Amino acid sequence: MSSSAVAFASQNHARFLAELKDLLRIPSISTLPEHASDCRRAAAALAGELKRIGMENVRVIEVQGGHPLVYADWLHAEENSGVPADRSTSAGRKPTVLMYAHYDVQPPDPLDEWLSPPFEPTERNGNLYARGAVDDKGQLWIEMKALESLLADGGFADGGKLPLNVRVLFEGEEEVGGEGIAAFVASKPPELQSDFALVCDTELFAPGLPTLCVGLRGMIYTELEVRGAKTDLHSGMYGGAAPNPFVALAQIIARLKDENGRILIPGFYDGIVPPSAEELAAWRSLPFDEEEYRKTEVGSKQLVGESGFSILERTWARPTLDVHGMPGGFIGAGAKTVIPAKALAKVSMRLVPGMTPAKSFALFKSYVEKIAPAGVEVDVRLIHQGDPCLVPVDNAYIRAATRALGEVWGRDTVFIRSGGSIPIVGDFARHLGIPTVMMGFGLPDDNLHAPNEKFNLKNFELGIVSTIRFLEECGN
Amino acid sequence: MSSSAVAFASQNHARFLAELKDLLRIPSISTLPEHASDCRRAAAALAGELKRIGMENVRVIEVQGGHPLVYADWLHAEENSGVPADRSTSAGRKPTVLMYAHYDVQPPDPLDEWLSPPFEPTERNGNLYARGAVDDKGQLWIEMKALESLLADGGFADGGKLPLNVRVLFEGEEEVGGEGIAAFVASKPPELQSDFALVCDTELFAPGLPTLCVGLRGMIYTELEVRGAKTDLHSGMYGGAAPNPFVALAQIIARLKDENGRILIPGFYDGIVPPSAEELAAWRSLPFDEEEYRKTEVGSKQLVGESGFSILERTWARPTLDVHGMPGGFIGAGAKTVIPAKALAKVSMRLVPGMTPAKSFALFKSYVEKIAPAGVEVDVRLIHQGDPCLVPVDNAYIRAATRALGEVWGRDTVFIRSGGSIPIVGDFARHLGIPTVMMGFGLPDDNLHAPNEKFNLKNFELGIVSTIRFLEECGN
Repeated sequence: MSSSAVAFASQNHARFLAELKDLLRIPSISTLPEHASDCRRAAAALAGELKRIGMENVRVIEVQGGHPLVYADWLHAEENSGVPADRSTSAGRKPTVLMYAHYDVQPPDPLDEWLSPPFEPTERNGNLYARGAVDDKGQLWIEMKALESLLADGGFADGGKLPLNVRVLFEGEEEVGGEGIAAFVASKPPELQSDFALVCDTELFAPGLPTLCVGLRGMIYTELEVRGAKTDLHSGMYGGAAPNPFVALAQIIARLKDENGRILIPGFYDGIVPPSAEELAAWRSLPFDEEEYRKTEVGSKQLVGESGFSILERTWARPTLDVHGMPGGFIGAGAKTVIPAKALAKVSMRLVPGMTPAKSFALFKSYVEKIAPAGVEVDVRLIHQGDPCLVPVDNAYIRAATRALGEVWGRDTVFIRSGGSIPIVGDFARHLGIPTVMMGFGLPDDNLHAPNEKFNLKNFELGIVSTIRFLEECGN
Repeated sequence: MSSSAVAFASQNHARFLAELKDLLRIPSISTLPEHASDCRRAAAALAGELKRIGMENVRVIEVQGGHPLVYADWLHAEENSGVPADRSTSAGRKPTVLMYAHYDVQPPDPLDEWLSPPFEPTERNGNLYARGAVDDKGQLWIEMKALESLLADGGFADGGKLPLNVRVLFEGEEEVGGEGIAAFVASKPPELQSDFALVCDTELFAPGLPTLCVGLRGMIYTELEVRGAKTDLHSGMYGGAAPNPFVALAQIIARLKDENGRILIPGFYDGIVPPSAEELAAWRSLPFDEEEYRKTEVGSKQLVGESGFSILERTWARPTLDVHGMPGGFIGAGAKTVIPAKALAKVSMRLVPGMTPAKSFALFKSYVEKIAPAGVEVDVRLIHQGDPCLVPVDNAYIRAATRALGEVWGRDTVFIRSGGSIPIVGDFARHLGIPTVMMGFGLPDDNLHAPNEKFNLKNFELGIVSTIRFLEECGN
């Protein structure tokens, strides 16, 4: 923590925070077509900042029908390391990191539950409140400001140099499936050749507890469309004879998952690789109080899910199925006695190691088509998908991260999984052959994807320091 | 059909239609608070027209927290009948009719399915398309223009006189439960003292077939609110542990009705009075082709409902349960991985003779509370209600209607029921002690409550003539 880059970060913290607020004011909601220009504006702002801090080859990369990627690199670590750059030997060889984050955000609805406007960043009680504060603009800005601190002030005698080679890749479609970046990574472009990736989009297991995430669930996000009558009908005139698409959807959904949370799709659990005994033992030693979690994070009268599995297993290592909304029919105030011609359900499933999106979707689709009740037609559509993934923990970069985090936070690092999905981590492994360090600084109560999303200001500050020290450790 | 009032109606038909279009341009959607002033505007227009055509004591009557009633009367039938007005004997005694219709309409959504704008009345193929064309502004205008024809030109030598005493009561809350008129009728005000009511809000069983409706289903319209977590949660982080309100609603709804359309609420069917053998026999002789009905009216791949009951029994004489919409969660395009904190379902049940709204709702509520899955809280709210009703067919007014319809349409009148609910008919019977003649001129494919609502122009014209002749028959 004695590096001069850390000192630079400390001296410039107020400016870093002001800049983050500017970024948060751009409503770059990737799923809403009317915000496409905001996504483009955010990408342009990032490209400008990358240039300003001294990154090279800055490019906004267009993707098919989506929001652009932002790329930059700085590949002079060997030239400046003071030892001969001989890539054929390990002497003087500096690794290359691929730093990833995303600039797009979730929609802010329901708007009326926000205490301050989602796109007007507001500080309260040591937190910064805004849509994207933690997911993921705040964490993207940690990467950006760590690079600026290293480039501007340098951890090295000659100043303004990075301790390792750096490639940056920011995307704008993470919240909508990331098809653009997936295709780009799958094409294995030379500019992504790296030794490992750093993803800053996860969280600490508990406040003050340094955490590396080494497992993610995959997902399939689907849409069920059920059609009954050819047009909306009066429920008095036709009730009892015309099929009701919402009733049909309810009957289908009720057969997807039983009341104990077990998914009823035949074959869905086949091939699942459970966590090892050691991993389960480590999870049991984490500071986790189920009743506290129920009360403060979830707030429901009781928790649900598969019996025989702990809450951490249910959310990290078991597949799940959720319904996110059921568009169609009448949703205004009061009463409208309509049998709608069609109704939809947005249904997603989280997948765990041993499962694939393709197989899971095929099983889901054929089961739904089989159980669809009489009188209706059902379309089952895949909206997006991501592979589950596990990161091997026995590599030098995970060890470097552990050292840096230990130094900055003064505690041993814990290894956890996340129930969420970061499909790009699987893509980096599959197409680029590199492991990913998932080092993130969110907190469990940061209201991701919900009203009043926040980022702890101390975590933002220590996140920058941790990232500086991690990159320095990797370059040693 | 030789009355001079009929001749007046025929000469003025183009004007009548133009005036109806003006009324249809007012978006008097009773369920949407933002259209409250439109409802008021419609009421004022009706009051003005009633004055213009010569009705007396015209009043706009405010109701508690809702859209106003419009009242008018003309009570001089005995003075002009040419015989002494002696109310103590039947000599010269003219009956008093209470003419009812409603000026409010259903919301027009989904807007994108309308071929012409819902509040810009458009003639196509002999029909008038607009929200409210048939339900119920077009039929209200039948009553208005029948009165104008009788008052303006008269069926009597001295002209401008009605053949019976007339009271008019138009309401603006029929589509939202009609609480205002229900309270007004329940107070038994002297100005509603009448011998029978005429409701013009029903339909012909088939084109060209004169029809009187003698039975209606009642209803309860409810809202289920299910709450899980205290705030919206990320389905990756919390999926598998946090309750999902939509899944819970689906599980509840799937247990309300089985796949054969049978309602599973314990005790729900207790006490139902089935139609008589004669009524069932009469229904069997109606011109009804189930396959044609499926194809042209419903348009679903098959019809649904309780086995052992014909389609007419299912829709006229059996209780049913429908879901109209499920507000909450994410309903935009694309994907949002949210476990919503709460979700709603709008659920209504139609009731048949022998059932009451109060008992049905109590059974429904306690059953829903009992079957609600673990982890969620459920509120069950009653939004509105109406009693089922049967009209005795052995009265002079039904016979007068049968004679008038036979003369105008040249065919025997059929007696049917409707699956819909017109709660006011039950209120007229219970509080005023009067029977109701339900004489209406809609058609089964008029798209009530749906996009492209229409009214057949010939039926509008013959409806006015039928009503003139019916009122003349009642005064004879």
